Amino acid sequence: MLKKKERYVTAVVGATGAVGNEMVKTLETRSFPVERLRLFASERSEGKQIEFRDTMVPVETLNETSFEGIDIALFSAGAERSRIWAPLAVRSGCVVIDNSSQWRMDPDVPLIVPEVNPHDLKWHKGIIANPNCSTIQMVVVLKPIHDVARVKRVVVTTFQSVSGTGQKAMDELLQQTTDLLNFREITCAVYPYQIAFNVLPHIDVFLENGYTKEEMKMVNETKKIMGDPSIRVTATTVRVPVFRCHSESLNIETEKKLSAREVRALLSTAPGVIVYDAPEKKIYPIPIDVAGTDETYVGRIREDDTIENGINMWIVADNLRKGAALNAVQIAEKLIELA
Amino acid sequence: MLKKKERYVTAVVGATGAVGNEMVKTLETRSFPVERLRLFASERSEGKQIEFRDTMVPVETLNETSFEGIDIALFSAGAERSRIWAPLAVRSGCVVIDNSSQWRMDPDVPLIVPEVNPHDLKWHKGIIANPNCSTIQMVVVLKPIHDVARVKRVVVTTFQSVSGTGQKAMDELLQQTTDLLNFREITCAVYPYQIAFNVLPHIDVFLENGYTKEEMKMVNETKKIMGDPSIRVTATTVRVPVFRCHSESLNIETEKKLSAREVRALLSTAPGVIVYDAPEKKIYPIPIDVAGTDETYVGRIREDDTIENGINMWIVADNLRKGAALNAVQIAEKLIELA
Repeated sequence: MLKKKERYVTAVVGATGAVGNEMVKTLETRSFPVERLRLFASERSEGKQIEFRDTMVPVETLNETSFEGIDIALFSAGAERSRIWAPLAVRSGCVVIDNSSQWRMDPDVPLIVPEVNPHDLKWHKGIIANPNCSTIQMVVVLKPIHDVARVKRVVVTTFQSVSGTGQKAMDELLQQTTDLLNFREITCAVYPYQIAFNVLPHIDVFLENGYTKEEMKMVNETKKIMGDPSIRVTATTVRVPVFRCHSESLNIETEKKLSAREVRALLSTAPGVIVYDAPEKKIYPIPIDVAGTDETYVGRIREDDTIENGINMWIVADNLRKGAALNAVQIAEKLIELA
Repeated sequence: MLKKKERYVTAVVGATGAVGNEMVKTLETRSFPVERLRLFASERSEGKQIEFRDTMVPVETLNETSFEGIDIALFSAGAERSRIWAPLAVRSGCVVIDNSSQWRMDPDVPLIVPEVNPHDLKWHKGIIANPNCSTIQMVVVLKPIHDVARVKRVVVTTFQSVSGTGQKAMDELLQQTTDLLNFREITCAVYPYQIAFNVLPHIDVFLENGYTKEEMKMVNETKKIMGDPSIRVTATTVRVPVFRCHSESLNIETEKKLSAREVRALLSTAPGVIVYDAPEKKIYPIPIDVAGTDETYVGRIREDDTIENGINMWIVADNLRKGAALNAVQIAEKLIELA
């Protein structure tokens, strides 16, 4: 458990990645009570320094004693590193907020979206999991609807940006685009096929049941975060040639009837949500507008009369911020509040 | 009605557009029995010539007597021009196959996808409508499923390429991409917002009910083509920065249970459909592979266990070919067969 302090020794593990980078920025912009910032990454980043509050912080490599004296560690270094290092950090007395998929479905690890289930923080045992990016923005919107009308079923199709894969994928999209415009051969290293001017219905690995791991994350994490295993989700997750922000087309079936107007009213006061919905004025959320913001933007809210209580909507959020770094920092802030 | 002949005087109206261009190519590659080809476009294209079977065909402007002597006219010049010129062409004894939305929902005009409802050709009165691109590829896949298991409801989200808007939109995507890579200001002329590295949940105009006209085309045209008003469709149509091919994420509810394996078997013998579905080998359809082909490619077929009889799938087709030019030429071929 986190002990109440004025300021906290805070670490970012995986500090040189796309999400780690955003974590450092978020700690700074939100004036997180950092006593001292420690940054960790793999050997490849040795010697690097990252600016934080006008000082350059060196990037260190991890060893068995690294976590001594650290209060809070934000991990974004992949599932394998989290599996190895997070328990070690906890034994050093550190609270770990982990962005990887490693601990999310562990019954001993709470999976937190602060707007949705802050109460689950109470039972953490040292590790707290940060959900998948596409799940976070969806549950922020589903929660207020669920509270008044009970969400029975969601059919979701995603349009996910390449930054969800990481910095290398952003580089690949840029390089492929440049190569194509110059009539050069392209190289596919991060994705199995060209992502420039293309879409790929394939995120993370394929499972036995024909779904991808990303799709099943949306199914299973939603139930855990919402604390209701009866919510049925079916997902198709698709990579699109967009640098930043995930968009999602949601078809929601509720137990109680809600009009589009009621949903709009409900979401306009929901924490972390901005209703951006006036199609007659061409107002609907799009990735390039939402990039760099903290909220989940909702538009195209309309009734689906093919079922009794159906609602369609279109939601966009910055996958590096609310989908990753921001949500992790918000969890840390909530922890401090409860300490 | 078309009279049986050896060869037909054939016209393409809107010959210089993206679809018109593809129509000319399709007439050539399919060895359509053209007696003589006539090409029409607006004044802006006056003086242009288009190659057809090794000869250059001049582009003409339309006047009241243009259609005299023409047997079959393929129209792709927008709804307004179809409204004015198609009835005139019919009075000249010409059969019109119209790619615009103008006549599609007219009860006197059959709306045809040759694989689905060729029988509806029998009651045409001179004008035959070619459906919306995103509808065509969907019904080609739904029809064989409907025949054995009855389709009750479809939730569809589209990923539509810019060529669906036309040549100018393809130019805009290219220009914006080039400008962005060169750190120049971009211009939005065709779309209300940047389409490069972005997605827009907005195709065609918004209607009173919050849906776009494109979305309602998918709802209404599907019922008409399938000849079954009980099929419920709800759609979210989205423009993506892809040059060619529309992709669609389909969630299908049937009356009778079908396993993924059964759907795969069913579709693998369906006309105009290619099952391209082996995720363990990273085999699924993507726009850059499907561009330039005639069939609708289906992959990611999997059971959706959030409802009793649910199937998810991912379909991709070339919107200029099966979604427009090819389907129009196939209608003409079917007409000749029935003549």
